[in-house]
This record gives sequence, structure tokens and C-alpha cells, in this order.
Amino acid sequence: MSSAAPPPVIILVRPQLGQNIGKAARAMLNFGLTEMRLVAPRDGWPNPDAGPAASGADIVLEQAKVFDTVAEAIADCSQVFASTVRKRDIVTPVVGPEQMASAIHSTAGRSAILFGPERSGLATEDAVLASHIVTVPINPEFGSLNLAQAVILLAYEWSRSAPLVQPTAFEVEPRAPQAELDGLIEHLDGYLSQVNYFNPPERMQATRNTIRTIFTKAGWSSREVKAVRGMIRAIAQPRLRGTPQP
Amino acid sequence: MSSAAPPPVIILVRPQLGQNIGKAARAMLNFGLTEMRLVAPRDGWPNPDAGPAASGADIVLEQAKVFDTVAEAIADCSQVFASTVRKRDIVTPVVGPEQMASAIHSTAGRSAILFGPERSGLATEDAVLASHIVTVPINPEFGSLNLAQAVILLAYEWSRSAPLVQPTAFEVEPRAPQAELDGLIEHLDGYLSQVNYFNPPERMQATRNTIRTIFTKAGWSSREVKAVRGMIRAIAQPRLRGTPQP
Repeated sequence: MSSAAPPPVIILVRPQLGQNIGKAARAMLNFGLTEMRLVAPRDGWPNPDAGPAASGADIVLEQAKVFDTVAEAIADCSQVFASTVRKRDIVTPVVGPEQMASAIHSTAGRSAILFGPERSGLATEDAVLASHIVTVPINPEFGSLNLAQAVILLAYEWSRSAPLVQPTAFEVEPRAPQAELDGLIEHLDGYLSQVNYFNPPERMQATRNTIRTIFTKAGWSSREVKAVRGMIRAIAQPRLRGTPQP
Repeated sequence: MSSAAPPPVIILVRPQLGQNIGKAARAMLNFGLTEMRLVAPRDGWPNPDAGPAASGADIVLEQAKVFDTVAEAIADCSQVFASTVRKRDIVTPVVGPEQMASAIHSTAGRSAILFGPERSGLATEDAVLASHIVTVPINPEFGSLNLAQAVILLAYEWSRSAPLVQPTAFEVEPRAPQAELDGLIEHLDGYLSQVNYFNPPERMQATRNTIRTIFTKAGWSSREVKAVRGMIRAIAQPRLRGTPQP
């Protein structure tokens, strides 16, 4: 039940009930996943309701780390899957559980799977941080997966395809960690702001989401991210230094 | 979400809590299974605790049939799987979820999956009625699947290998035609040449190859290629118009 790639990190974004955090931990450990991260859990952390619901998966809860934002929680991850139904307003590629598992097993970098709050699911601004949306194909007339069920199905799918992975499936270069991608996007955003690209202001967030999706989708390695930053700098800096062209 | 073979019947043998019967119904309906049978439910049937736990999967509960014995419940089934860990005292063949799903899809007859009581699991005398034992491969150091989780994993596995399941994996937007990608690369190349980016000259071809690889890998759609060209233009053009920054 292992491949060369590290097992995915399970990230619960703004989970509401401690009981559901415990159930998710139990679901994870059944399939050998132990790394849980919590982004802004509603009732703080630790939560006394989590332990009993974990039914013995205490090690997952004890090692859980808490973050303020999704961006911080995924900073060291090179591949991020947002578990949600398809969102109309973003164009992030959609994959099924099996393709997700295959992608996790075939990257040398660290992968994460994001799960949204119980009631509302992942918000668009969280989903756009992901490289892929992963959707479990369910009954179109009755889709009612709770948080722990979504976790267990994706954990199972990861586990079931683990032994079949061939080491040759590795990418030549792993995707850059999320923090490097964020650096590129901020760098570009800074230049774009200076040339008044985000205009009209009411479109600013949508435009920023589009930019994030575009560069997340690219799947660049650290080396490639650096090269793109170099090109952006080369094009933009003469102007920013105030040097008129001859 | 159907194949030529009928979907399997889910049989709960001596289930204890109405709530768990409801959760099992919800798990089933997510993957299009609607036929539930109950063998000697501890608290009788109907059970008022089942409905709320089913979260809308009422049709499964309303159609559930009650039997006194496992033998009666499986009388019309040609293939029966007992969901349990392997039993030392019987020699029934053991299969994994995928093999079970494949066997269900490839028989013309009706199949059933048996699940035991929450606390104890299936008794040996019930398991021996099955043609196969089906065991979900779980963490050997932490196996803790509850009834609804066992149901949902096997229902999912049946559904995922159903031949008519719609592929969920699609790119929301197709990749841009190569000519558009070439346009982007030439556009960028033009700006880069003007700022003397391709220096030293003997590295020029290698650098151009790198740039092509980077933007080909991105897999952008026509819309995304246009957006990136717009950003490049926005950053580069004030300088090229010779406008010094204030």
C-alpha cells in the first residue's frame, strides 16, 4: 500500500463539527492516510468532539496541523485537488477519483486534497487554488455524500491504485510547490496592477481567479516557474525603471 | 449508471440501529442502488430512526423488504457476496471489491451483497451461504469501517466499473490550436528580443526551446492564450510606446 510518491495530505477547509473532523480522521486511517490539516476550523482546535468520533484514529488528530488560510496549508504541495462538484465559474480541469489517484502516485511532489465545510462545500476562491477539481461520479438524481464519505472514497481510491504504480510513471520534473507558484502570480499581479490592468475594479476578483487558474493549470516545475518570472521581469522592468526606449 | 446485469441487492443481516439502516440507504442511493433487504432487523421495521439518517433516500427505505432468514432473502439471487473480513473457518473464495464489481457486471443473474450486524459482523453460518467473501483491503493496523462505509465503498466500486458510467474526466475547454500557441510564443519572443533577453546568442536556440516547452506544457485554451497575450501586452506596451512612468 505504498508508492514512491508521498501519500496525499487531507485538508479540511473551515470544518464545522468536531465530530466530522473525527470521522474524517477515521476514514483516512482505514486507508493508511495520516496527515490531516485544518484551515480555520469553526470551533477552534483541538475540539473535544473529534476524539470519540475518530474511533481510535487518534494519531491522525494528534498530528493535525492548523492553518489560517488555504494558501498556507498548501504551500508545500505541488499538486492540489479540490473535492467538489464542478463549478460553473471556473475552468479548472475536472478529474475522477481514479485519475486523481493516478496523478498522486505519479508525481514525486507532495499532493493535497481539499474538502470544504460540511454545509456549503468548497468556496470558489478556495477551489481556484487547486490544480484539479476531483468529483466522485454519483447518482445525478441523488448526490448526498457527507464529508467523511467523500474522504473515505478518495482515500480508498488512492489506496487501491497504490500497488499498481510503476516507478517509470514519474514526471521528469515535479510540479513546483504551491508557494513558488504563488510567488509567480504575485509578481505578475504587481506588474499588472501598476499598468492598471485590473480595471474595472468590480471585475478584479474574477480576473484574479482567471489568472490563478491559468498558471495553476500550467503545471510548471520550479525551474519553469523561475524562467517565466525571468521573462516577466525582462519585459516589465525597463519600463518600471522609467527608462524610455530609444 | 447501469450495465446489462441488474444492480446488486444490498442485504443487511440483523441490523441493530435504525440510524445505520438509514445511512446505508443514503450510501446506496448515491451510487444508484435502490434495492435493500433487511433480515430480522433487531428493532423491527419500519424504524422511525431510519428516515432522518437517510437524508432524502426515502425511496430505498420505502421499498425495503423484510425477511426472516438470509436464505429467504437471497433465494432469487444467483451470486451472493458476503462483506466481511476473511473467516478462518470457511473456505469460500475471497475477492476484492473490484473483482466483485466485475463479477456482478458480467453475470446476467441477480447479485446480492450481505452485510452483518454493526457490532459483530456476519456470522459464519450466514457467510457460508455466499458464493464469495468480499473484503475491502484496509490498513492492517487500523481496520475500522462502519456499516454505511462498507456499503458506500462497495456501491462505489460497483458504480465505477459500470460500463455505461459517464466519463467525468473532461477538460472544460479544449486546448487552443497550435497556431494560437505559436502566436503567443512569437508575440512573447518579439518583446523578449527587444529587451535583449536572448543573450548570449549561442544560447538563443536552447532558450527558445525552453520557452516553447513551457507554454506547450501549459495546455491552455484559446481563451486562456488570449488572456496571457493580453497580460504580456499590458506589461510590455507602456514601455514600447516609450512612455516613461510617472
